[in-house]
Amino acid sequence: MIKYPKQLLNLISHLQKLPGVGKKTAERFAFHLLEWKKSDLEAFSSCVSTLKEQILTCLECSCLMEGVSCNFCTNDKRDPSILCVIGSPRDVYAIEKTGDFNGHYHVLGSLLSPLEGKTTDMLCLPALKSRIKKLQTHEMIIALDSTLEGDATSLFLSEQLQGMNLKISRLALGLPVGSSLDFIDEGTLSQAFSGRKMI
Amino acid sequence: MIKYPKQLLNLISHLQKLPGVGKKTAERFAFHLLEWKKSDLEAFSSCVSTLKEQILTCLECSCLMEGVSCNFCTNDKRDPSILCVIGSPRDVYAIEKTGDFNGHYHVLGSLLSPLEGKTTDMLCLPALKSRIKKLQTHEMIIALDSTLEGDATSLFLSEQLQGMNLKISRLALGLPVGSSLDFIDEGTLSQAFSGRKMI
Repeated sequence: MIKYPKQLLNLISHLQKLPGVGKKTAERFAFHLLEWKKSDLEAFSSCVSTLKEQILTCLECSCLMEGVSCNFCTNDKRDPSILCVIGSPRDVYAIEKTGDFNGHYHVLGSLLSPLEGKTTDMLCLPALKSRIKKLQTHEMIIALDSTLEGDATSLFLSEQLQGMNLKISRLALGLPVGSSLDFIDEGTLSQAFSGRKMI
Repeated sequence: MIKYPKQLLNLISHLQKLPGVGKKTAERFAFHLLEWKKSDLEAFSSCVSTLKEQILTCLECSCLMEGVSCNFCTNDKRDPSILCVIGSPRDVYAIEKTGDFNGHYHVLGSLLSPLEGKTTDMLCLPALKSRIKKLQTHEMIIALDSTLEGDATSLFLSEQLQGMNLKISRLALGLPVGSSLDFIDEGTLSQAFSGRKMI
């Protein structure tokens, strides 16, 4: 049986590492790439190869940086007394879109998941504690996923940070805006009930 | 509002060009790539940039070539008297998997689609005719998509090649193997009826 050329197989195996991309999709992507212009392929390729040099991570908050200074840590207009704890650098952009938050961020980088080997050591708690002291933070918003891992991490953080004189909150659980009750699971509905607000 | 770093936006715009990848998926891919090891990124990048040099197209049949000779055109064990006309180089691998065909291939490269500017000129009919003469082909199998474009192209080819003393056939239309009648559209069912086989 005739197989794909080696270079194509190679490309397919790389593409398969992308999230949600199986063999079929990777093949489709690879054949699509074959049709790209040489200049486009080169632009894409150089973009990938220089990714780590162009996009750095802030040593303070672990957010992505363009250039040498962090948009968040070095911005005087942001309030250092409120700290938002997030799971990944990507979450920053979702929160910034809302325009509701003007404090500092702290990226955990991973959530607790003992089965995947993600233990409490990986949360770098000492770094978080020293930031809280340095920034003189008095409020912390935990903005983690509302998953088992996010719940466990939130609980762990709030326990460990007790006694630091912090107001700690977590994002509200409830109905997503625009949702219909028919399609809401019991867990969400139950949370929406217990978190109901007076009008 | 804080935006993604420029390099990331750049990467996202490249990834969005892949088929079926919208903005959200491209963002997801880009953030995933940020987590790859540097060596993996470089391997992926060099694979993309050398794609056009490593994978050539056979000047005869337009199939993909690894190295300088075509696996199909230069293979003595293949029967040149049967020619299979396909739409894209990718279709070769699907047909080769069946193990049912041992003739030569001819890649059209595009199907007729006047609205997209794909006219009969793009089918390179003279090249196909000269191959038929050169290979002394006596049977041609049209293995194109069973879409409007595939139908139009098949009809056009069969009309244009009349008088060349060729047996021309097209792939059978009918129920896909393992399908249930409940889920079959009327068009397919109607084709399956008219193409029924005696048992």
